[in-house]
Amino acid sequence: MPKLLIIGGSDAGISAALRAIEINPGIEVAVVVADRYPNFSICGLPFYLSGEVPDWQTLAHRTADEIKKQGVRLLMETKATGIDPEVKTVTAINKHGQSRLLKYDKLIIGTGAFSTRPTLAGLDLPGVFTLRRMEDGFAIQGYMQEHRPKSAIIIGAGYIGMEMADALTRKGMQVTLIVRSDRILKTLDPEMGEIIRNELECHSVKVIDQLAVSAIEKRGKKLLIRNVQEIPVEGDMVLAATGGRPETTVAGMAGIPTGILGAICVNRGMETNVKDIYAAGDCVETWHRLLKKYTYLPLGTTAHKQGRVAGENAAGGNAEFAGSLGTQVVKIFNIVAARTGLCGRKARESGFDPLTTDQEFWDHKVYYPGATPLRIRITGDRKTHCLLGAQMIGHYRAEISKRIDIFAAAIFNDMTVGSLSQLDLSYTPPLSGPWDPVQMAAQHWVREACK
Amino acid sequence: MPKLLIIGGSDAGISAALRAIEINPGIEVAVVVADRYPNFSICGLPFYLSGEVPDWQTLAHRTADEIKKQGVRLLMETKATGIDPEVKTVTAINKHGQSRLLKYDKLIIGTGAFSTRPTLAGLDLPGVFTLRRMEDGFAIQGYMQEHRPKSAIIIGAGYIGMEMADALTRKGMQVTLIVRSDRILKTLDPEMGEIIRNELECHSVKVIDQLAVSAIEKRGKKLLIRNVQEIPVEGDMVLAATGGRPETTVAGMAGIPTGILGAICVNRGMETNVKDIYAAGDCVETWHRLLKKYTYLPLGTTAHKQGRVAGENAAGGNAEFAGSLGTQVVKIFNIVAARTGLCGRKARESGFDPLTTDQEFWDHKVYYPGATPLRIRITGDRKTHCLLGAQMIGHYRAEISKRIDIFAAAIFNDMTVGSLSQLDLSYTPPLSGPWDPVQMAAQHWVREACK
Repeated sequence: MPKLLIIGGSDAGISAALRAIEINPGIEVAVVVADRYPNFSICGLPFYLSGEVPDWQTLAHRTADEIKKQGVRLLMETKATGIDPEVKTVTAINKHGQSRLLKYDKLIIGTGAFSTRPTLAGLDLPGVFTLRRMEDGFAIQGYMQEHRPKSAIIIGAGYIGMEMADALTRKGMQVTLIVRSDRILKTLDPEMGEIIRNELECHSVKVIDQLAVSAIEKRGKKLLIRNVQEIPVEGDMVLAATGGRPETTVAGMAGIPTGILGAICVNRGMETNVKDIYAAGDCVETWHRLLKKYTYLPLGTTAHKQGRVAGENAAGGNAEFAGSLGTQVVKIFNIVAARTGLCGRKARESGFDPLTTDQEFWDHKVYYPGATPLRIRITGDRKTHCLLGAQMIGHYRAEISKRIDIFAAAIFNDMTVGSLSQLDLSYTPPLSGPWDPVQMAAQHWVREACK
Repeated sequence: MPKLLIIGGSDAGISAALRAIEINPGIEVAVVVADRYPNFSICGLPFYLSGEVPDWQTLAHRTADEIKKQGVRLLMETKATGIDPEVKTVTAINKHGQSRLLKYDKLIIGTGAFSTRPTLAGLDLPGVFTLRRMEDGFAIQGYMQEHRPKSAIIIGAGYIGMEMADALTRKGMQVTLIVRSDRILKTLDPEMGEIIRNELECHSVKVIDQLAVSAIEKRGKKLLIRNVQEIPVEGDMVLAATGGRPETTVAGMAGIPTGILGAICVNRGMETNVKDIYAAGDCVETWHRLLKKYTYLPLGTTAHKQGRVAGENAAGGNAEFAGSLGTQVVKIFNIVAARTGLCGRKARESGFDPLTTDQEFWDHKVYYPGATPLRIRITGDRKTHCLLGAQMIGHYRAEISKRIDIFAAAIFNDMTVGSLSQLDLSYTPPLSGPWDPVQMAAQHWVREACK
């Protein structure tokens, strides 16, 4: 029986394992899992910390037992420490410090990413956290239970920063959000970021932008954020949510080439350039479907897709990763913000001639109770009229997540902005209009483009 | 200035008028409106009658003033009585009985449909209604205000029947739904219809199926439904919601060919075969994008699209109707049912080799509060794996309407079922999963198809 070994038990690794067995039930699959939490939905941690998810165990996409029942062997609390591609072995060490040699015919690396730690003093102080792995979540939860912090400082205005501002406010804390630039959620245009800032401030989150943090210090019971501007900022706990970088130590030691931000280079079949070694998820470069080049775009959805491709190919299949559009959605208090494709700036940098339009619509016929405004930005290419990207913000009940998916499906299929109006979308007054807002926004874009 | 005359002031007619002016601001546009309600959202009537929409005037997509401001002349309460294509004139009669001759260079017919009246005695009794036009709504509203009916009988289990069962139950009436066949909402498969029947019955709607109504009779203050089975059914009011047929009297008199169910034959440019006469909306045959043939599929969304194409072409443009997929959605009490494309039976009749799979998923990660089950049926072709259709039922907050639109966008672009998994759809635990239910359903279909 061919042996498939997978390093990493999160989204990419487990997706790969299950797909490999589905494709080739005769394959022997083992997964090296660094912690005790294989296949956990780490995207759910903010909701565990907010108290919305009372039991962390429910965060498992599948339990270890469910995975094992599929025929996958799980080597828990085991860290891969080296790969020898010549003899096809992986060395791994378990929690007791015991080292072992694991043979493979095919290897998939899904080691994920680590949280970046800004270069500043005080990050190791008690009460200062990052949030990526289950243990990070437990550490924060433990600290909250023990110290009952009344205030929190979040450094970073990305997705985790947004979700944690919501979560900790729900926990009753006064949250201060520190942003290095003047932009909230940079994957959206500044106009959209401002709507989010407003939502944060409406829920008593204090947003301080353009603040360069120089250190975190302990002052009595408080944590003090030192900054160049000498603005006094202090709180009972600090979360550094400043993004992630690919975790590729083991891959690097094996001589597997890395590229953008140190991510592992792979082809569309998720093969590294070392024979029989694949990689997937937050540790790899990701093919961008619109840019037609590799980029670093770590997302859970992408990790699942890439893992599935890697697993299929490692099991003898011939799958190809179709590419990412950077589709993302986040719920922040009562609003949802979503995006897909390219924003205007990125489109211009990439050689397109972008036009971005911005308009507000009702999410459904305004005569039916509960209609809420929906802000839609569309970016398209002036010359070809190709749809390049969309951004949307509105009430969290306004079906924004699946509306951005209409745009994502359209971009996937190289549709023009104008042809969105030809889509036969569903309509009933409580949920939409005879032209869905997506189509009204597209018609507005075409009018502007033809001016 | 070229003269564009439009017969019909509902979705198709007004869409055509506005598009024509947008394309060619120099064009002179007049619309013959049979009633006093141009551009009203008749889809909103059930919500007016339920009391959810307190003021019927808000049902206007646009007010008459707004339409006039765009430069469209409205000839209100005026009925077209004849067309002379030779001399390019339309005869029309206003509410005072005055006849006039209207010249045109281009003519668009958007006369809509009329409600079918089953061939049974008693349909003209007071308290017996159909529902299509604004006046129908006012008649029902007036009757309800005057007679305070405590019970209602609805004949027909289509979209209007469903919405009115909900609406009249909300009004506090005991509703009995009479179905000729054993199927609820026949545009969905019977399995899905059963879920709707259950929802109706959970809200105290009495469903009587396989009942052949022979007559409606007045018995004291009650209306009695006579039927072959002699089952006693009586109520204080009756709504016959048995569908519609194209209204083509004027078109027929002008010798314009009609086809399926008497609908006007048009090409993809919405031209009839009479020079300079276009037609659009519920009065025409509709190109089906998957069947690649004409069918009769009257829908508000389609009327808007066809009207837009007709208006554009009448104004000198060169647009083409891309075709309908029969995408529909309806909210019934707490559930939403949606469909697009072909069901298995229709696909088989049309020469496909369909496989339909049926599974239930959570609308979002089940650990996050409020997850609800989502039933998804996918129909695809076994040979080509082409996606042919989808049906979905679940809670009305489960973004079903826009999830069916992902399928609609996929069918529009001739995607295979398997390739749905490649779409970069959005994910956050409160709204979806890392594989959206749409994709999990697609993966299930592929597994079944490959067995």
